[in-house]
Amino acid sequence: MMKTTLYQKIAETLSDQIQSGTIKTGEKMPSLRDLKREYGVSMNTVIQAYLELESQGLIISRPKSGYFVNYKPNRLSVPSTSNPEGIEEPECVESLIAKVYTSLNDTRITRFSLGVPENELLPIAKLNKELVNATRNLKGGGTEYENIQGNQKLRRDIARFTYTWNGNLQEEDIITTAGAMNALSFALMALTKKGDTIAVESPVYFGILQLAKSLGLHVIELPTNPITGVELEALKKVIPKIKTCILISNFNNPLGSCMPETHKKEVVSMLAKYGIPLIEDDLYGDVYFGSNRPKPCKAFDKEGLVLWIGSVSKTLAPGYRVGWIAPGKFKEKIIHQKLIHTVSSTTITQEAIANFLEKGRYENYLRKLRKTLHSNSLHYARAIAEYFPEKTKISNPQGGFMLWVELEEKINTVELYEKAIRQNISIAPGRMSTLQNQFNNCMRLSYGQRWSEHIEDKLKQLGRIAKRMS
Amino acid sequence: MMKTTLYQKIAETLSDQIQSGTIKTGEKMPSLRDLKREYGVSMNTVIQAYLELESQGLIISRPKSGYFVNYKPNRLSVPSTSNPEGIEEPECVESLIAKVYTSLNDTRITRFSLGVPENELLPIAKLNKELVNATRNLKGGGTEYENIQGNQKLRRDIARFTYTWNGNLQEEDIITTAGAMNALSFALMALTKKGDTIAVESPVYFGILQLAKSLGLHVIELPTNPITGVELEALKKVIPKIKTCILISNFNNPLGSCMPETHKKEVVSMLAKYGIPLIEDDLYGDVYFGSNRPKPCKAFDKEGLVLWIGSVSKTLAPGYRVGWIAPGKFKEKIIHQKLIHTVSSTTITQEAIANFLEKGRYENYLRKLRKTLHSNSLHYARAIAEYFPEKTKISNPQGGFMLWVELEEKINTVELYEKAIRQNISIAPGRMSTLQNQFNNCMRLSYGQRWSEHIEDKLKQLGRIAKRMS
Repeated sequence: MMKTTLYQKIAETLSDQIQSGTIKTGEKMPSLRDLKREYGVSMNTVIQAYLELESQGLIISRPKSGYFVNYKPNRLSVPSTSNPEGIEEPECVESLIAKVYTSLNDTRITRFSLGVPENELLPIAKLNKELVNATRNLKGGGTEYENIQGNQKLRRDIARFTYTWNGNLQEEDIITTAGAMNALSFALMALTKKGDTIAVESPVYFGILQLAKSLGLHVIELPTNPITGVELEALKKVIPKIKTCILISNFNNPLGSCMPETHKKEVVSMLAKYGIPLIEDDLYGDVYFGSNRPKPCKAFDKEGLVLWIGSVSKTLAPGYRVGWIAPGKFKEKIIHQKLIHTVSSTTITQEAIANFLEKGRYENYLRKLRKTLHSNSLHYARAIAEYFPEKTKISNPQGGFMLWVELEEKINTVELYEKAIRQNISIAPGRMSTLQNQFNNCMRLSYGQRWSEHIEDKLKQLGRIAKRMS
Repeated sequence: MMKTTLYQKIAETLSDQIQSGTIKTGEKMPSLRDLKREYGVSMNTVIQAYLELESQGLIISRPKSGYFVNYKPNRLSVPSTSNPEGIEEPECVESLIAKVYTSLNDTRITRFSLGVPENELLPIAKLNKELVNATRNLKGGGTEYENIQGNQKLRRDIARFTYTWNGNLQEEDIITTAGAMNALSFALMALTKKGDTIAVESPVYFGILQLAKSLGLHVIELPTNPITGVELEALKKVIPKIKTCILISNFNNPLGSCMPETHKKEVVSMLAKYGIPLIEDDLYGDVYFGSNRPKPCKAFDKEGLVLWIGSVSKTLAPGYRVGWIAPGKFKEKIIHQKLIHTVSSTTITQEAIANFLEKGRYENYLRKLRKTLHSNSLHYARAIAEYFPEKTKISNPQGGFMLWVELEEKINTVELYEKAIRQNISIAPGRMSTLQNQFNNCMRLSYGQRWSEHIEDKLKQLGRIAKRMS
């Protein structure tokens, strides 16, 4: 028998406490100092114990905050890589999407279908103040048309903020847009024409599919892994056929996957070989739970072929409609699209966001938001493990807002939606995230609402409905 | 010799004073009461004298404000109906447009190329106040996504305001957009696909041409009269070929034409016969100089085939990006376009405009704006008559912001632009308003800047440059 060292003993004790629920998922672990005192051991020993627990995936470290319990019971495995068959279903999901969307305006409903953090998490008072400042700073109080490329200060702030991933973008590289979808729409219209083929992850945000369909594009849905994102081999095979590829590289909506750096490098170089542009929707990248912001593919772009898209809609103010694109060599084309479709952006909200960013408020605020969302994600996952049917699988996102939940095959989540909405619970059925006949037993659950007993009750209720269907 | 009545004598005296410049174009005429006292005649006689002058086009009445001098020297006739040859020029005007646009952000330049009223005419303090109110009234201070169709209060206010043309639209008929061009873009994308043909007026706002081109549409430019708008016979001939028709029915940009009601009725019924939708861009309709707001074509739409577009960009706040569309039977299609391209409108500026409209401030403010712009238009026209080369022709708009000026054929207005911009004067060359090789000797001059000695000097300077080219 192998000799058990002191740190391993401590790790085992803590591991038992975690797995038995004595220390609950999402809770903060005792500080190193407290643990040192409690066990009467050296600092080195407690550090080793925590590293051991971390390597087992039982706890997770958050910079400046300490360690948190990250345990999920074994039966909740991660869904396997998706495997789209490539046959588009004639059945129209637009009515389903419209239905789910409508429920978003009804606050009596517990909206697990929400794609943004709830109001309570947003710095609303500070934003209001910046709006008032903006009316004072701007010529004409913001009634004037903005420069076509967008507010200069905002573009400078966005460019500077790319320091978080060692980006070196300049203000002239950036064009502001009315949110990330608007940027994506300009990019697709600039790069493709009716009848062209594009490639996307599968499952993928339904808005991208609806946009592509409306523009008359053929969409190849690629196999995608819930942890590492798009399958490189699958993408490689279709490159000769496509005009562009859209990837939500960091904390993909709805799957939560985050491409490893090596994959990002590889994708950029694979596409560059054929001169194919990559539209990278990086709108969740700032909401990471680990120690560093994951780099976007843009970080590896030497040819100007990556159109990098971001926004504050998922972190600050969806209703402000402030997003941006750094379109590399396609800059003039994107400016032309912006000019002909919308003339210019809303002047006042751009200025307010610019001021907010300039004062360094963004990073401070994000630090809090990340903690809350990470803790939410662990609580939600724990509750799902507790209340949902056996054989349920669940993603393990390291950022963003979404859990991807796969139920037994016989549970149809459109039916589940119908039953749940009658109990004032809204979910996003998986069928929304594909044009094919797949993900019928999957759903997207947002943890953008702060953890509470109410949320726990509602997840319990949802689990009960699902259990009755299994 | 015919007997000259008393009122005719008075009219003749006043006519002499107007034509000799004793009472200048744009000035207010003496009130009826003053004139009665001055000439010692009955009220009836002075009224008849003014009606006589009005019938001669020397003065014009403005409700609640009295009569104003409307005289333009004879040599300034109105340009004749346009006659596009139908051959698209391969030469690209995009660089010209970009050049002219860039000059719009430089306030050292006297911007006759401006398409909006200058700041000094806008109710900026009141709008700022409404923005602050909006942060208080809105849930989440305006950070939340707006309902897809748009702010309900705003849609109700817009619907109500159609009383000005006896419209009876309801809030559910209206979808808000990021300005009128954004509405037009949704309409074109909803109604056409690449390779389709559409018809427009000629000359026409260059943004419409650029948008249509970018969507891969064929554009038929129709002969258009500077007073009555599009030529009905010409439109009738092409109806079987087109998917839709775009008309700026009231105070067309750049021509200033306003279709008579009979024409509007006729166009609606002609198109209805073939089931062809009409996209009606009515963004200048509220800025009329006569006694009533001209009706839009929408007023005669029985089939739901007219997509009526409006905005506050030309009257209140260009930078707020608040426009709308009442798309008749195409409502679901337009909502879908809005959803996939922009998700929703900017929440806060919609609410601010809604509050402004709700308080009845809009009509009060418009009354002032109309007076100022009408007076501007007369002053500008008088100065052009005085300083520009002989044989110059000029439109006589009864609303809107634009004068269309036709110079001798040998004066190329792109060259004129280059010379003028060196003297800090910006104009919009006619070539921007067509895809064909025409209007090379025309230009659009905006009178959105308040009349002043500075403006007179700059028009004089512009006239001098033009004279040197003739």
